[in-house]
Amino acid sequence: MSLQAQLNANPGVTADRDDATHGFVFNHTMLRVRDVRQALDFYTRVLGFTLVRRRDFDEAKFSLYFLVLVDDPSVIPAEEPARGEWLLSQRGVLELTYNHGTENDPAFAYHDGNSEPRGFGHICVSVPDVEAACARFEQLGVPFQKRLADGRMKNIAFIKDPDGYWVEILQPTARV
Amino acid sequence: MSLQAQLNANPGVTADRDDATHGFVFNHTMLRVRDVRQALDFYTRVLGFTLVRRRDFDEAKFSLYFLVLVDDPSVIPAEEPARGEWLLSQRGVLELTYNHGTENDPAFAYHDGNSEPRGFGHICVSVPDVEAACARFEQLGVPFQKRLADGRMKNIAFIKDPDGYWVEILQPTARV
Repeated sequence: MSLQAQLNANPGVTADRDDATHGFVFNHTMLRVRDVRQALDFYTRVLGFTLVRRRDFDEAKFSLYFLVLVDDPSVIPAEEPARGEWLLSQRGVLELTYNHGTENDPAFAYHDGNSEPRGFGHICVSVPDVEAACARFEQLGVPFQKRLADGRMKNIAFIKDPDGYWVEILQPTARV
Repeated sequence: MSLQAQLNANPGVTADRDDATHGFVFNHTMLRVRDVRQALDFYTRVLGFTLVRRRDFDEAKFSLYFLVLVDDPSVIPAEEPARGEWLLSQRGVLELTYNHGTENDPAFAYHDGNSEPRGFGHICVSVPDVEAACARFEQLGVPFQKRLADGRMKNIAFIKDPDGYWVEILQPTARV
């Protein structure tokens, strides 16, 4: 039995995909951020994301920021509506929700999902060289949840974004 | 000023990407699920995901399930290690963490992130025809957090997965 057939035999799995799901795309993951300046700095400077769209809802006092991590940002259409259609057709978009003013409350913090009550766990960025990437994160002063040397799994690390969300770092060609 | 230049002018944004981030990929989002059979049913049958990898940690009593949403599953390498390298190089992978036995505790539930303490908000699946997709979800008995007709934004819906996590549904070609 092929590996795929074995996986398809897991209870619950529908192996024969419904044609009605053709063209479905896992487009984005949304995280709330307390200080959008710090979050944009982290995702663009440290991880290389590009900010593709910002939407402001002044009456409801929040803004949305959509970012992608692509090697060649010139593939992003320059103007709407092509830009928005492209964005919403991509896999792996990160949406940040910023509620205006939260950064001014020193006591304000979002929940990272890894202490009670648990749920969401982490996002992951894969990198060509996990040792080099982690050395650079150290140099940049990025906080770690787990360094490569910590724990049993020596090929993965977890860094933390400015809100404390965990970002797993791994290398596709290393055994993980 | 171009739209990209305007976006790059947001405080915090690094417009000149660090070459060290070349090859970085926003690979996956991890959610914990109470009943993996129900979760696999939802993500494969309702949304069309393919289960690509399962890893069991029997001593620590948890298992990881990695799923992708691709129109042509034949692009997935059949065997390891090519399969794993492919998986970890993709954008838009969904990782489900199942702690063994949680489905046997009727009182057990994960936190969806949208009530206090808030943090993670939702994932999103874009679809070619949001009206048709939502009609199918209704037919399948999928619970909605927000139907298309609810609220101000008539072009987006939110359904709920078996753990109550919100899944936004939108159509890239509709104004959202």
